[in-house]
Amino acid sequence: MTITARKRRRSGASPRDREVNANRIPQMPWRQPRNPYPAMKILSDDQVEAIHDASMRVLEELGIELMSAEARALFRAAGADVDEATGVVRIDRALLAELISTAPSEFTLTSRNPAKRLVFGGDHMAFGMVAGPPSVHDRINGRRSGNLPDFENFTRLAHHFNAIHIIGNQVCAPMELPANSRHLDTYNANLTLSDLCFHTTSIGKGRAMDGIRMMAISRGMTLEQMAEDPGVTTIISVNSPRRFDGEMAEGLIAMSSSGQAVAVTPFTLMGAMTPVTLAAGLTQQNAEALFGIALTQLARKGAPVFYGSYTSNVDMRSGAPAFGTPENAKANIASGQLARRYGVPYRASPTNASNAADAQAAYETEMALWACMLGHANLHYHAAGWLEGGLCASFEKLVLDVEMLQHKMAFLEPIEVNEGELAFEAMKEVPTGGHFFGSPHTMERYETAFYQPLVSNWANHENWELAGAKDATMRATEIWQTALDEYEQPPMDAAIREELDAYIAKRKEEIGSGEP
Amino acid sequence: MTITARKRRRSGASPRDREVNANRIPQMPWRQPRNPYPAMKILSDDQVEAIHDASMRVLEELGIELMSAEARALFRAAGADVDEATGVVRIDRALLAELISTAPSEFTLTSRNPAKRLVFGGDHMAFGMVAGPPSVHDRINGRRSGNLPDFENFTRLAHHFNAIHIIGNQVCAPMELPANSRHLDTYNANLTLSDLCFHTTSIGKGRAMDGIRMMAISRGMTLEQMAEDPGVTTIISVNSPRRFDGEMAEGLIAMSSSGQAVAVTPFTLMGAMTPVTLAAGLTQQNAEALFGIALTQLARKGAPVFYGSYTSNVDMRSGAPAFGTPENAKANIASGQLARRYGVPYRASPTNASNAADAQAAYETEMALWACMLGHANLHYHAAGWLEGGLCASFEKLVLDVEMLQHKMAFLEPIEVNEGELAFEAMKEVPTGGHFFGSPHTMERYETAFYQPLVSNWANHENWELAGAKDATMRATEIWQTALDEYEQPPMDAAIREELDAYIAKRKEEIGSGEP
Repeated sequence: MTITARKRRRSGASPRDREVNANRIPQMPWRQPRNPYPAMKILSDDQVEAIHDASMRVLEELGIELMSAEARALFRAAGADVDEATGVVRIDRALLAELISTAPSEFTLTSRNPAKRLVFGGDHMAFGMVAGPPSVHDRINGRRSGNLPDFENFTRLAHHFNAIHIIGNQVCAPMELPANSRHLDTYNANLTLSDLCFHTTSIGKGRAMDGIRMMAISRGMTLEQMAEDPGVTTIISVNSPRRFDGEMAEGLIAMSSSGQAVAVTPFTLMGAMTPVTLAAGLTQQNAEALFGIALTQLARKGAPVFYGSYTSNVDMRSGAPAFGTPENAKANIASGQLARRYGVPYRASPTNASNAADAQAAYETEMALWACMLGHANLHYHAAGWLEGGLCASFEKLVLDVEMLQHKMAFLEPIEVNEGELAFEAMKEVPTGGHFFGSPHTMERYETAFYQPLVSNWANHENWELAGAKDATMRATEIWQTALDEYEQPPMDAAIREELDAYIAKRKEEIGSGEP
Repeated sequence: MTITARKRRRSGASPRDREVNANRIPQMPWRQPRNPYPAMKILSDDQVEAIHDASMRVLEELGIELMSAEARALFRAAGADVDEATGVVRIDRALLAELISTAPSEFTLTSRNPAKRLVFGGDHMAFGMVAGPPSVHDRINGRRSGNLPDFENFTRLAHHFNAIHIIGNQVCAPMELPANSRHLDTYNANLTLSDLCFHTTSIGKGRAMDGIRMMAISRGMTLEQMAEDPGVTTIISVNSPRRFDGEMAEGLIAMSSSGQAVAVTPFTLMGAMTPVTLAAGLTQQNAEALFGIALTQLARKGAPVFYGSYTSNVDMRSGAPAFGTPENAKANIASGQLARRYGVPYRASPTNASNAADAQAAYETEMALWACMLGHANLHYHAAGWLEGGLCASFEKLVLDVEMLQHKMAFLEPIEVNEGELAFEAMKEVPTGGHFFGSPHTMERYETAFYQPLVSNWANHENWELAGAKDATMRATEIWQTALDEYEQPPMDAAIREELDAYIAKRKEEIGSGEP
């Protein structure tokens, strides 16, 4: 049985369905978490300023190669020093400060379901799906190329699990579809199988505009209305060191000029794309990110934008990228200090470099995730399903990630201290050496007192063995299967559905989807 | 092949040995980590005071059942209200504050190797082995009862891995040995196979005194000298709610009156041994811990003592203990706030409740461990090898833990920001879109720039598959085997060795070790 052949849950609630409902996978309700504690600081204020200063020297003296004439024209018009022969743009710190000053410190993204509006900035957090892997894996069907049925199932899971707030740019690439129209199919799946915000593909203007237009259709809005109330975002990577790709720059301009959000994220793997030190990696990241943020504001003042960090290290023996390392954790915290220096919402990624959804995947993810949380990342990108350093989307890892994300959400709920919670009277009633299982204080609260796990199994060894001695990864397989059974497609107005279909058909014709 | 039959590494360095040395397991050098960042606070100052106040009411109005006449006599002499009929001791807040005021805010433990002296208090951290499991597991030999050969191998690994600073109380119980003299065999293994500090067994005075005397012999010191320069510690659990066992109380008195360290740790699993709320769990923990700390100071003013926290929750559906939960993480941080309120070094535990050394074991351990670190735990007890909620010592989990502990040590090394680290000149030399692999700046630093992993595998998928597609747990099996091969027994003076042997022989005769 392939996973795509699994029975969809019937609409209409038969008695059996109701029974299934009562035994649904336990999960926390949908809500956007907030971090009530101060952000951790691992750089002193002086160190932040030293990194800022060095990054300004990078922008002033070395510059960024910007491979788009349109983007260069925007910088030139603003007064930057543009060398058309090399494409290098140099920008002094006063002009840079002026340009980025219009970036908002907080903004919202709203999907077709206003109840799932997301706030970015301040102490708000959102967790996003993995984006971009060419491959897919689960323990039943093994490893294969990304494809639309898997994409659709990942999208169903993103909708089903409340800990996932936003869908990334192609949770896996549907390799069987024509390369220059597949974005239409993935946007369609995002919009019809979930009601979450999602990331557009911004390699060039066309793909970005399709995402914006399709979100606008699903919300029943004009582009002008959506420019004031954005609904999609995108990741703009920088080809570090100091090179800004032309299609990426133009995708950025399309998104920003339409008022949609952009996360400018330098690809700063220390030892490869930056010098081998954290101070230099952060400096280069800062220069490249601020340059991209300036471009968003040149495209449209006040356009929503994230300060993106992806700084980690490579394995210096092999050049392989590493994530969830101590250096990556430090970068995740320090980058938050930098983002807040400029008053721009902060995007980071709780990722790992494991080849399996195993203990390594878990401890590396936790390293990165704790640091993202402590560093007050607003957008936790790639937070669910990421494996193999981003080359594979994993169904089991997605389930493990939901548990890890829910752990953080429960952890961030402050401790209540009041007479009822202090429970002096309950302590008085239980004798020394007794227990509180039957205490009225316990009975009133036990159902919601503690986080109820999704994956963790706390049975004793004998019962665990009797139940098949399944490790966490094996249990995760059962959970994503059950989740797909439980999944219910969010309703969509038939007229909107038709309008979307017509848009996709028209665009496929324009693009010419017969090509390979 | 059983693990105990594995070849010990020869002394004398043949050419082959030197080759082995060059390929030794990568690990960080032995050092005690310090936490340079402020401790996290998740309770407001008012909340800390409310919990303090409620715990004082517990001690004043409800009292603690203290099942040792000797210990009760100490409290009575100090002016506490002692009910001999019930064994309940009530102590008012003024007297309690006076008694605990003599507990030192910092102390040292010194083993037979002065280079491995440990500091407890302030920002100092130490990681300890798991203690107490009745069972043992590894992937080659499966699950079995604790036994001396396994105990010895765990002790070798504790000595070998630099991230482990202290040995707990019986990393596994050697069940084949007579119950009331086996502590002599485990102390002997601790002292001869490692040069680390260790925990004594303090069920009754005799076992505690044997540990103190054997450490004194190994250090060539008198008991009087060691009282001024302690070398062992112990865990004194409280049988929560509000019951202090007689043998534990007398073991505490033996240790404290000998000037050795004690960690008073209430067994406060919320929902079972305390009310179901964090405020109440922390209140009860605080009352019970401070009561035990007061007893240490009654035994000897200035005796070194830890404020111990073990507060976690149970699964309210089954009553099973859970660790590494969001509630446990919050308790680990809040307990640090309480310990620091009283100026007493803080002991906590980065534990988990998994039945396998799998992803659950890793993410639960990380939850608890990050919280221990953020809460400035000084002693991280049970930090290596703990599985099954403490019922099993795992060789693979030990290796995974060493990686997780080293991650924290590397994370806590502050970022350096200076001209060399900012690397502006190196950035200038590398063209846009280039790379830094061959840069002189990289070549000077690459060997030590990043943490080198013990378990993590960052190979690409194809190479990982070619190498056998081993997950982290499978690789951990290879690592502990290699570590046992690499292990070198620390030398011990022959006269001390003889004195230890004679002590053990005499004590076994006194105890009568022929009994079951």
